[in-house]
Amino acid sequence: MNLLQQKIIAVGKVLSDSVLKVDSFLNHQIDPELMKYIGEEFAALFADAGITKILTIESSGIAPSVMAGLNLGVPVVFARKRKSLTLVDQLYSAKVHSFTKNETNEISVSNSYLSKDDVVLVIDDFLANGQAALGLIDIVKQAEADCAGVGIVIEKGFQNGGNVIRQRGIRVESLAIIDSLIDGKVTFREDTSK
Amino acid sequence: MNLLQQKIIAVGKVLSDSVLKVDSFLNHQIDPELMKYIGEEFAALFADAGITKILTIESSGIAPSVMAGLNLGVPVVFARKRKSLTLVDQLYSAKVHSFTKNETNEISVSNSYLSKDDVVLVIDDFLANGQAALGLIDIVKQAEADCAGVGIVIEKGFQNGGNVIRQRGIRVESLAIIDSLIDGKVTFREDTSK
Repeated sequence: MNLLQQKIIAVGKVLSDSVLKVDSFLNHQIDPELMKYIGEEFAALFADAGITKILTIESSGIAPSVMAGLNLGVPVVFARKRKSLTLVDQLYSAKVHSFTKNETNEISVSNSYLSKDDVVLVIDDFLANGQAALGLIDIVKQAEADCAGVGIVIEKGFQNGGNVIRQRGIRVESLAIIDSLIDGKVTFREDTSK
Repeated sequence: MNLLQQKIIAVGKVLSDSVLKVDSFLNHQIDPELMKYIGEEFAALFADAGITKILTIESSGIAPSVMAGLNLGVPVVFARKRKSLTLVDQLYSAKVHSFTKNETNEISVSNSYLSKDDVVLVIDDFLANGQAALGLIDIVKQAEADCAGVGIVIEKGFQNGGNVIRQRGIRVESLAIIDSLIDGKVTFREDTSK
């Protein structure tokens, strides 16, 4: 098991057969040392992909993305879920439904920070139904940029998002893939490169 | 001028006598190298304060906080502006009015991640009217923790928040204090330790 998987086993809480709570190190409290490790892993996986920019979504995608950006030497852009009054630029936007929160957000990115010359690594904390990642990939497409792949901290392998994105021919790298949460037990897919 | 001040001069946009837009490196696009510098500065300023936890607020406070947390060797907790369905704990909460967005948010922090044994450094991206920082300080007080101070990336010295917090006897360290944005020109307070 890698450091992330060890942390999930040690302090993650299985709330149901489909919900894993990692508020103690990723979604509410953040472990900076673990984020550093995650950033290094993403940077190593995509070292040869010619990445020029990381695209993520507020809020839990920001910490792993900034650490990856530091290692790859590229800026991070985070999509906003709500428009700010000082965000006066032209926007790329996409609709994203969150099943966890049972709401649909319009996410948006200023066109100042993504262009057709960019090679983009999309990063997010969780991949379940793939709604957020697909919204981000759609924004990359609107910018006519190249999507080099998707980096995910925790993929729920028993939900469909990973398959949907991989079937589009997009590279997905998840640092932990969970195959099951049944009976309160976290079961990882052994080779997380698949 | 420090690196942050140089960046503000180089790419910050003065939208009015009171609004500085730094979406290109802090609030929408993030410069990870600059965040690393900011984190190191906060860590140096509060190195002897016995900090056990950093408290910030989503979303723009997260990147500088994680870098500070990495340098201080402590976890970061970010207050949420909306409640998540998987956040089932008892919450500390406070109301925060944003003049920029013209809305009031209830911010909340799980009581699992702040306790009376904590010595807390509050970090935020901007200090203007002080509403967000005061909300975070209120949450520290609810947890009966000790607030060692407030670290701010950019303080608008011509607005009242900094005075209000300092007059309470709370240490405020702002890496850039802006005294004026009049005529589209950024004027820094010379000694930002005051």
